[in-house]
Amino acid sequence: MGFLLAANGLLVLYVSIYLFKLYYGDDWEGLYESITGYGLGGSSMALFGRVGGGIYTKAADVGADLVGKVERNILKMVIADNVGDNVGDITGMGSDLFGSYAESSCAAFFVASISSFGINHDFTAMSYPLIISSMGIVVCLITTLFATDMFEIKNVREIKPSLKRQLLISTIPMTAGIAMVSFFAWPSEFTLFDFGTEKEVTNCHLFFCVSIGLWAGLVIGYITEYYTSNAYSPVLDMADSCRIGAVTNVIFGLALGYKYVIIPIFSISISIYVSFSLSAMYGIAVTALGMLTTISTGLAIDAYGPISDNAGGIAEMAGMSHKIREKTDALDAAGNTNAAIGKGFAIGSAALVSLALFGAYVSRAGIKSVDVLTPKVFIGLIVGAMLPYWFSAMIMKSVGSAALKMVEEVRREMIPPGALVMLTPLIVGTFLGVETLAGVLAGSLVSGVQVAISASNTGGAWDNAKKYIEAEGSEHAKSLGPKGSDCHKAAVIGDTIGDPLKDTSGPSLNILIKLMAVESLVFAPFFVAHGGLLFKFI
Amino acid sequence: MGFLLAANGLLVLYVSIYLFKLYYGDDWEGLYESITGYGLGGSSMALFGRVGGGIYTKAADVGADLVGKVERNILKMVIADNVGDNVGDITGMGSDLFGSYAESSCAAFFVASISSFGINHDFTAMSYPLIISSMGIVVCLITTLFATDMFEIKNVREIKPSLKRQLLISTIPMTAGIAMVSFFAWPSEFTLFDFGTEKEVTNCHLFFCVSIGLWAGLVIGYITEYYTSNAYSPVLDMADSCRIGAVTNVIFGLALGYKYVIIPIFSISISIYVSFSLSAMYGIAVTALGMLTTISTGLAIDAYGPISDNAGGIAEMAGMSHKIREKTDALDAAGNTNAAIGKGFAIGSAALVSLALFGAYVSRAGIKSVDVLTPKVFIGLIVGAMLPYWFSAMIMKSVGSAALKMVEEVRREMIPPGALVMLTPLIVGTFLGVETLAGVLAGSLVSGVQVAISASNTGGAWDNAKKYIEAEGSEHAKSLGPKGSDCHKAAVIGDTIGDPLKDTSGPSLNILIKLMAVESLVFAPFFVAHGGLLFKFI
Repeated sequence: MGFLLAANGLLVLYVSIYLFKLYYGDDWEGLYESITGYGLGGSSMALFGRVGGGIYTKAADVGADLVGKVERNILKMVIADNVGDNVGDITGMGSDLFGSYAESSCAAFFVASISSFGINHDFTAMSYPLIISSMGIVVCLITTLFATDMFEIKNVREIKPSLKRQLLISTIPMTAGIAMVSFFAWPSEFTLFDFGTEKEVTNCHLFFCVSIGLWAGLVIGYITEYYTSNAYSPVLDMADSCRIGAVTNVIFGLALGYKYVIIPIFSISISIYVSFSLSAMYGIAVTALGMLTTISTGLAIDAYGPISDNAGGIAEMAGMSHKIREKTDALDAAGNTNAAIGKGFAIGSAALVSLALFGAYVSRAGIKSVDVLTPKVFIGLIVGAMLPYWFSAMIMKSVGSAALKMVEEVRREMIPPGALVMLTPLIVGTFLGVETLAGVLAGSLVSGVQVAISASNTGGAWDNAKKYIEAEGSEHAKSLGPKGSDCHKAAVIGDTIGDPLKDTSGPSLNILIKLMAVESLVFAPFFVAHGGLLFKFI
Repeated sequence: MGFLLAANGLLVLYVSIYLFKLYYGDDWEGLYESITGYGLGGSSMALFGRVGGGIYTKAADVGADLVGKVERNILKMVIADNVGDNVGDITGMGSDLFGSYAESSCAAFFVASISSFGINHDFTAMSYPLIISSMGIVVCLITTLFATDMFEIKNVREIKPSLKRQLLISTIPMTAGIAMVSFFAWPSEFTLFDFGTEKEVTNCHLFFCVSIGLWAGLVIGYITEYYTSNAYSPVLDMADSCRIGAVTNVIFGLALGYKYVIIPIFSISISIYVSFSLSAMYGIAVTALGMLTTISTGLAIDAYGPISDNAGGIAEMAGMSHKIREKTDALDAAGNTNAAIGKGFAIGSAALVSLALFGAYVSRAGIKSVDVLTPKVFIGLIVGAMLPYWFSAMIMKSVGSAALKMVEEVRREMIPPGALVMLTPLIVGTFLGVETLAGVLAGSLVSGVQVAISASNTGGAWDNAKKYIEAEGSEHAKSLGPKGSDCHKAAVIGDTIGDPLKDTSGPSLNILIKLMAVESLVFAPFFVAHGGLLFKFI
């Protein structure tokens, strides 16, 4: 699935560029402006995949729990739950990462098209984002051989470390691959535009930008693993807190989610500082791409858990023996911790992508600086920082109301959050103008990243604390269990509270920040010409 | 208590200004720079009042619950609980609002001292902030007469609307008072500095700035009441959600807290936009002061609940009859909803004050613009937006760990969050320089306000949902109760989770954003001269 997604995304981009080229001829700027439409399309799809999928899967979960007592409905709900897993975990994550991928390529293209090599029609240099992604597919293919043939997996316990190792194994040769591509595709020195001024860049700079993205992704992935896996102290502490009760578990879980934002934010800021300083906005765009080069491996790791879970569901419905269900459960547990790694990548790349798109938007809108100390920008910033809360509030209530109502209802529940995301840039741009919109984008970016990271990981940690108690894999875990004990009940409460956070509102925020940025980019010329109506009349 | 606080704050400010004047003579800028020290002192006190008080009161609460079963410890814990209420709700809120008050005066003084009337030594105009606050005390005194003598309160039910009415009654004459002061203190037209450029301002503009702050405070206060009072649908919905269980209650509560940020943020942004456009940073500073003019009434309303609660505690320890406890409980309930109003004021004014201090800092550091699209500022912004989460994570865990350990332990638990707040500006300023620090301030301001608002109100709403079920005041409430039912248990879980959010981490964030801003302001000249070490060597 990982390879299919990465390869198809790349193929469609190649084909569209060639088709557009036939139409636009030598008008490269026009060509890449049209390509931003591809990004917008990818992102809109992702919104519905994530939000709809998230609400559906959680509603199905909650629904399955609620009607679990009525025997004849069980089958229906298990099917809904399975479909939900697919829609939420596979479609949602896939469309999210695909969106990031499409958008970071678009942002890189757009910045490139208005820079020196766009104007000089240097096609090799222009194709750099595509070549980097192609190299990623090749490297991931080689990595897969390591996983399947070099180190054979003999028992269930080996699955988790093996999946985790994949990521590291693909990152090291990828760094060499990036170096190769960078040195062949670029001249040793050239010029980039940096908001009006020109900037001298070397091919070595670009190699650093892409690589720092790649390694920052790895750091975020592993730190996510540390905070949400039941092999380390954060989750074990949480499991322990269940002894006192559900309340302590919930408070500790929220605190853990908050605390977990620290290292990813530092990783993201260091990457931003380095790549921004080296190669301006183009640097940010290729850093985002760098984080996504190992997307094929990442998605494969990510899909492992939900696929095993569904296999288990089917085995149960088919009335197969309990042994099979036990095996799929073990595979599911091994896969599930690693699913958090994928979420880390999705959030990290979303932050970088939105910043790159934000930069492209600012160039396109002809804004010279986004000064926090002007009233228009500041109110944009503070309102923008509020949007992730508004959005989360809508989505979290949806999960509650949609339970037991299913598909029709989910569709209806998706409209308000979708409208919030899609209409905000249009309303702000039209009535308040491009400066305020720049503030809104910056605000929603910096605040949305934090909410997304903390929500995703709080949920993940609760989930694993519960699983840790249920698995009874150690003396410590046995002292907390068994299933049905007060301690386990407290863990279940935490897990159920975490579900809408980790599967619906958290990941959907990635889309919020990306989609608003790409939409602003697409409509920037319109806002410049006709926007800011309100301030014209006051 | 409200009057004492407002009057003392004002008195100390007057006295210090006169004393400093003897020393500095005609060097007005030096004089008002020293006054910023007053703001820093007020704010540091507030940090320890809020954080320490918050942790103490909650630890006492949780502790009282835990040892409630052991008879002979009950008395000790009730005393600790009472002391905790005093420290948390009275000292904490008082020092927070006092900090806002001291700091907004300082920010106004500082901006004024470097503007035209500072240079022209126009003492009446310079004293404007003090005159406005004095007028506030007079107006609130008159309002008190209305409450105690004009409308006599005959039964317990009348307390709540009467307290609420106080705020409106004080706001209307206050607006007239502001108009009077503005027209007498100012010439009809004069010049203010606006980041290097000059700005024409009229006395009418300043009247608008102060008044919009006053009325925005009223709006925020009443909307807080709407979202957290058990007389309106948000809390009733939450009480209903307890039928399904604790999980739904918790999810609905978090969603409610998130949703509640919308209107306060719009109110704050409109005030900021209007006052910023009319009178630049000086406008923001006096808008914050405007919100705080009715502080005496606000604090009186706020202290009502905790005082009644303590009276109840004392009555119980003294072995007085149950009737007395019932009466104090009713008074407590009436007061408690209104306590949320005070929190709304504290957060709203904190946001405005930090922005004013931020503006003063930027002038003092000689920064021309805080452009989000420069790497130094952007990384500051995103890291700044992360700080409220880090801080909350520390505080929320403290509440859990400090339970049962009390005073000594609370002191120790206060050190890490205190250090985070106090050291961040110093470290960022020294190593990364003034631009990055500007980014950190902007980021922590826009993100901290949201977290503070949502945390405070989630907790408040859970608290009132529980009280609603317990009071059995309507058919609907009776269908959810009685005490001990599953529904009530779910409500209790929500309430206990909300405690550290509403009483510790939420309100402490006000201090985080204000203290970091005032500290940066005080150290700005040092950072300009010696800061940014890291970037000098890279």
